[in-house]
Amino acid sequence: ALIPANELNRAATPSRISQIMKYGFPGLDNVRSQSDYVLSYDRRTRVPHWVFEHLTAQSVDKNSDVDRAKSNFKPDDSIHPYFRAQNTDYLRSGYDRGHMAAAGNHRLHQKHCDDTFLLSNMAPQVGQGFNRDAWNTLELHVRKLTRIYANVYVCTGPLYLPHKEDDGKTYVKYEVIGANAVAVPTHFYKVIVSEAAADNKLHMEVYVMPNRVISNDTPLQVFQVPPETVERAAGLLFFDQLNRSQLATINGKKV
Amino acid sequence: ALIPANELNRAATPSRISQIMKYGFPGLDNVRSQSDYVLSYDRRTRVPHWVFEHLTAQSVDKNSDVDRAKSNFKPDDSIHPYFRAQNTDYLRSGYDRGHMAAAGNHRLHQKHCDDTFLLSNMAPQVGQGFNRDAWNTLELHVRKLTRIYANVYVCTGPLYLPHKEDDGKTYVKYEVIGANAVAVPTHFYKVIVSEAAADNKLHMEVYVMPNRVISNDTPLQVFQVPPETVERAAGLLFFDQLNRSQLATINGKKV
Ligand SMILES: [Mg+2]
Ligand SMILES: [Mg+2]
Repeated sequence: ALIPANELNRAATPSRISQIMKYGFPGLDNVRSQSDYVLSYDRRTRVPHWVFEHLTAQSVDKNSDVDRAKSNFKPDDSIHPYFRAQNTDYLRSGYDRGHMAAAGNHRLHQKHCDDTFLLSNMAPQVGQGFNRDAWNTLELHVRKLTRIYANVYVCTGPLYLPHKEDDGKTYVKYEVIGANAVAVPTHFYKVIVSEAAADNKLHMEVYVMPNRVISNDTPLQVFQVPPETVERAAGLLFFDQLNRSQLATINGKKV
Repeated sequence: ALIPANELNRAATPSRISQIMKYGFPGLDNVRSQSDYVLSYDRRTRVPHWVFEHLTAQSVDKNSDVDRAKSNFKPDDSIHPYFRAQNTDYLRSGYDRGHMAAAGNHRLHQKHCDDTFLLSNMAPQVGQGFNRDAWNTLELHVRKLTRIYANVYVCTGPLYLPHKEDDGKTYVKYEVIGANAVAVPTHFYKVIVSEAAADNKLHMEVYVMPNRVISNDTPLQVFQVPPETVERAAGLLFFDQLNRSQLATINGKKV
């Protein structure tokens, strides 16, 4: 379908933002509304706190008018220069510019796809074996949910998880890359709520994946964790407009 | 002087908040107004992003009606339990519960002093050699500024500074303590703006100190850095309602 001219540069409307954020904001730090997703930016790490998307079968459907090859990675001018990630930060770092809101989730308009290429929507991800493999498998899984559910809400972001060292103490350690010291998260999470059209039931799935090479035969279920685990680690509350008892299932198990 | 009963439990009034925050909020994440200071809480690290105080000769003056020995360290119930630091987190950690808004800056009312003992105002600090020594010296220096200047505005907070390792890469690494994984910052900063009564001139001082034993004979000037250094590292903008060209001096040098 030809895109109407008045939609070529459409920004997110207040009603679209309400739709995406229907079940609550995980936090309110430096929120940005892009054309088809909503983001909270962490100025200290130069990557997002969280990115929220609302997907339907239509929004993830192949669309010959939208081509991700036409989209370019670009710095987000809405972020103060002190805290803005640049393409040069990623150059020769060994990491991919990893989309938090996946490009393949935003196929209604070229502008929607383009906006996912803002560097404020990126975090450094291991390329081969993660971004292009296990993490991509998780993104495909989320898109497939739109074949079963009328509405899919997905929140994606980084984690900096602690580990115990030989001295018996617990540390958080992560690499930072480039002149702007962009943080390389140790893990990434996705918290997903899917709405069934038939019975209006809500289903939550929660995944945490380490930012490293993951064997392609690892089943997704291995990465499922309780939502509280991500909330405590991220300092965020997910879908807090929903009582957990309103969910039919969490990670496939009856609530 | 006897404290009037209606002032015993006084909370910060909007006009007091405006006074403390006269030159701008460094950020807006989880802001809390306590009786005599304003704080932004980092739910991920369980310590503040920044704490803002407005000091005068009167507010830091000795007051026989206010006794810090009567104040108790207490968890901040306004923080969600997932992100709330507890006294047990600090217990046997080897670190002090280090005030960001110093108790000695809030001597007008017992309630002002008490509020500085909220654990949301704390970060783990090396005790001997830092909290009780070099950092305390810096706090005393800030209080002394009220003898020269009519108004002293001070913003205090933690930093997690990167370092280069043998593999040529740059990392951020910090310890976390207790069941709630309270972050131990690698450094702390203070950004101070003092208003002279006579000529209305404004003077900025900026300090960054490592969270470790510091020799008592180290002059404070050693820890002075340009404000931009702290801003980039913290992801915050200090005194952004002031143009830097409106400052008479930064770290004692003419702007
Ligand atoms: Mg990707
Ligand atoms: Mg102290």
